Amino acid sequence: MREHTVTQRLGAEFLGTFWLVFGGCGTAVLAAGVPDVGVGYLGVAIAFGLTVLTMAYAVGHVSGGHFNPAVTVGLAAARRFAWKDVPSYVITQVAAAVAAAAVLWVVADGVAGFSAEESGFATNGYGDRSPGGYSLLSVLVIEVLLTAFFLYIILGATDTRAPKGFAPIAIGLGLTLIHLISIPVSNTSVNPARSTGPALFAGPDPILQLWAFWLAPLIGGAVAGITYALLLGGEDAAPLTEATEA
Amino acid sequence: MREHTVTQRLGAEFLGTFWLVFGGCGTAVLAAGVPDVGVGYLGVAIAFGLTVLTMAYAVGHVSGGHFNPAVTVGLAAARRFAWKDVPSYVITQVAAAVAAAAVLWVVADGVAGFSAEESGFATNGYGDRSPGGYSLLSVLVIEVLLTAFFLYIILGATDTRAPKGFAPIAIGLGLTLIHLISIPVSNTSVNPARSTGPALFAGPDPILQLWAFWLAPLIGGAVAGITYALLLGGEDAAPLTEATEA
Amino acid sequence: MREHTVTQRLGAEFLGTFWLVFGGCGTAVLAAGVPDVGVGYLGVAIAFGLTVLTMAYAVGHVSGGHFNPAVTVGLAAARRFAWKDVPSYVITQVAAAVAAAAVLWVVADGVAGFSAEESGFATNGYGDRSPGGYSLLSVLVIEVLLTAFFLYIILGATDTRAPKGFAPIAIGLGLTLIHLISIPVSNTSVNPARSTGPALFAGPDPILQLWAFWLAPLIGGAVAGITYALLLGGEDAAPLTEATEA
Amino acid sequence: MREHTVTQRLGAEFLGTFWLVFGGCGTAVLAAGVPDVGVGYLGVAIAFGLTVLTMAYAVGHVSGGHFNPAVTVGLAAARRFAWKDVPSYVITQVAAAVAAAAVLWVVADGVAGFSAEESGFATNGYGDRSPGGYSLLSVLVIEVLLTAFFLYIILGATDTRAPKGFAPIAIGLGLTLIHLISIPVSNTSVNPARSTGPALFAGPDPILQLWAFWLAPLIGGAVAGITYALLLGGEDAAPLTEATEA
Repeated sequence: MREHTVTQRLGAEFLGTFWLVFGGCGTAVLAAGVPDVGVGYLGVAIAFGLTVLTMAYAVGHVSGGHFNPAVTVGLAAARRFAWKDVPSYVITQVAAAVAAAAVLWVVADGVAGFSAEESGFATNGYGDRSPGGYSLLSVLVIEVLLTAFFLYIILGATDTRAPKGFAPIAIGLGLTLIHLISIPVSNTSVNPARSTGPALFAGPDPILQLWAFWLAPLIGGAVAGITYALLLGGEDAAPLTEATEA
Repeated sequence: MREHTVTQRLGAEFLGTFWLVFGGCGTAVLAAGVPDVGVGYLGVAIAFGLTVLTMAYAVGHVSGGHFNPAVTVGLAAARRFAWKDVPSYVITQVAAAVAAAAVLWVVADGVAGFSAEESGFATNGYGDRSPGGYSLLSVLVIEVLLTAFFLYIILGATDTRAPKGFAPIAIGLGLTLIHLISIPVSNTSVNPARSTGPALFAGPDPILQLWAFWLAPLIGGAVAGITYALLLGGEDAAPLTEATEA
Repeated sequence: MREHTVTQRLGAEFLGTFWLVFGGCGTAVLAAGVPDVGVGYLGVAIAFGLTVLTMAYAVGHVSGGHFNPAVTVGLAAARRFAWKDVPSYVITQVAAAVAAAAVLWVVADGVAGFSAEESGFATNGYGDRSPGGYSLLSVLVIEVLLTAFFLYIILGATDTRAPKGFAPIAIGLGLTLIHLISIPVSNTSVNPARSTGPALFAGPDPILQLWAFWLAPLIGGAVAGITYALLLGGEDAAPLTEATEA
Repeated sequence: MREHTVTQRLGAEFLGTFWLVFGGCGTAVLAAGVPDVGVGYLGVAIAFGLTVLTMAYAVGHVSGGHFNPAVTVGLAAARRFAWKDVPSYVITQVAAAVAAAAVLWVVADGVAGFSAEESGFATNGYGDRSPGGYSLLSVLVIEVLLTAFFLYIILGATDTRAPKGFAPIAIGLGLTLIHLISIPVSNTSVNPARSTGPALFAGPDPILQLWAFWLAPLIGGAVAGITYALLLGGEDAAPLTEATEA
């Protein structure tokens, strides 16, 4: 295993998170609602999952392929990633998400009548900003729960006892599944960076709700990280190869 | 192969079965019927399959990844799993399914006008409770048959002669296929635990029909377990590594 | 590699072909056309592909996983399968297809007003029996071409130089792709056994058109088998392990 | 690793590119817009991805599985493919795309009232030829960006540090994702050969816009090739085995 520099690792996180936000939110903004032939929530769910599947194969061996602050925190809580590297990862992920949303805005603005604020621009929300009008309680419960299971999938599929090489499939399609369940509830976050990028371009309302999409995923990720180590991992849980010091 | 404790194995079965019911039934309840952009039966079929694919990679190496009483019984019938461990597995699976249905009820209740009884809450049914109005005979035939093929896929893909590491893909996508075929007929069970969880929250009618969704999958699973060993396996059928004593 | 008996190999072909016809045609008959939430042609395409993906992992190591007379003939033409075993494979495949169609008829008949003849029962057809009204020429061209590419995928993905273990994914999803392209043209055969089973239950018209769905796939399969060996394989083409004498 | 002749390598590129255009554009022309049960943009996205997944497994070990001039140029820019072999690859890809479009025209013409010009015949376009009316700027931005990420996926997933054998899954499903995002914008090219084939059969308008679908993908591919080597690869980037001299 060749060591990677900090620049390479953060570059890989930037690429992956950019792709997650541009690909997932891009499909939601550009392609989901086209009449008759649009891809719908199913297409959006597949798109989000494939952003992670593809980038985990492409650059996962460089940075670990987190692309998500809740994943970074959850892996640290499970002692698979160094706490001291968490801030630089999270900052990079948020910067990439903002950049992706900016480029998506440029593309989406190329058709007459586009308004990020009116369209929602793939932002997450609760209450009257939930796609299906779900309450804050429902949104918090499902975001905590789904982020926790996302971390269980990540921790389990990258465990040394799991089949080698298949983790990106399990993790990517796990994110597809998470979106299949919950787009109508919260428009699906489980990823604070993904929530932050589009929110900055869609008026004040989504920004005022951002706290929920930082709080719930981070709690879910941390809880899963701690409980996985307790329940299934123990002291000899295998650290990810990418969690070694850079 | 490290030995796992009984707690770890039952914990893995709980996680996996919870995920199967929350993810599969959650997609059916929350996302399938949204107008225009809803995920439909295709999304529900993909969701059920991905619950198994993801959890089989995540914790299959701990418990064997059954998540289903018919699978546990079928594997025992094929002599791949110890009969004495069947009761604890089945009880855990049913408990997880009930817990998942309870959390799903909390989330679904977060939108005005929700009624588990009126919506059906992803319960299985025959006759006037079949999505397409199929008779009890049709439901029994298809549930026995599909559960049997589910077991053939499981037994074959985890056979020592099959390619290593791919079994969760074959098994998970096999469950997707089973749902593609049969949601209109029975809302697709092939899993008594999955049928039991939602039924407890949706009024008396689905409970009165539960017998069929225990009987048919268990028969199908057992028949497949016995016939697979006779036809393709013989005495030297490879036991699953996870079927060793805890 | 353990040797399998003739009974085991033909049993595996029976299981796989039964699953292909019951799963693929079953999805088409039972689930494709449900209003609003039906799985459509996309669901049917996915279903056909997953029947092959799942059974190739489950029993491909026993029989080679043909499940299709055009595949058996194409592999023989490419010198990957013994010509003397072709008749028993093809007869088994057709018997399994008829049995699957019979069971599907029993299930489908469990709802009021079902008529296999009026519904088409997932039969293949050209001219006024083509789903989109395509001519016999279009149907013959596309069936020859798609069967040939199906064989190229099979021959290439099982070549000793291809990555190990992935062939069922490539082959199964290849069949999904083939259905995505051509359901509107011919309802997609590329498999004479799959065409024959449902035709026997849907009145005289599909039987009168069956010749086209034997002729075109067999030509496509044979042409691909011969040209693959000439273009890419040569004398040292690797025989499938399952093509050894039983 | 057995050496392949130039004929074998170009034959493999011809097969793969033919399949990409026939399968992807064929699904768009024949199956996407069927009322009620048509496969929509989601089906087209899946079809394009599966053409690459299947042929990369089938013949990727022969030619490297480019099937796309932008991929060939991007790999050369990343020093993974010999510049001197670029012209023969690109000419073969374009010839295969034209041949595939011609056969597709024959099939599509088998239904009354077909007109390639009026239907669009799966051509790419901007402005009033964009499916959703997107501007030239939007189209250029998204085509450059998506081709660049396609190359990042290809370069990363075939890197010696990535898991072995999974690259065709990552690359194929990456192309699916790219189509999920961008069919409404440009009808998705990221592949000059794919754009050229259908354009020749659909009247003068798509030909006049072809420059954009050569320029943008080639820029995106080259930029990705250069930046990947700088950022993640360095001098010791592993050449693809198929990039050796023929």
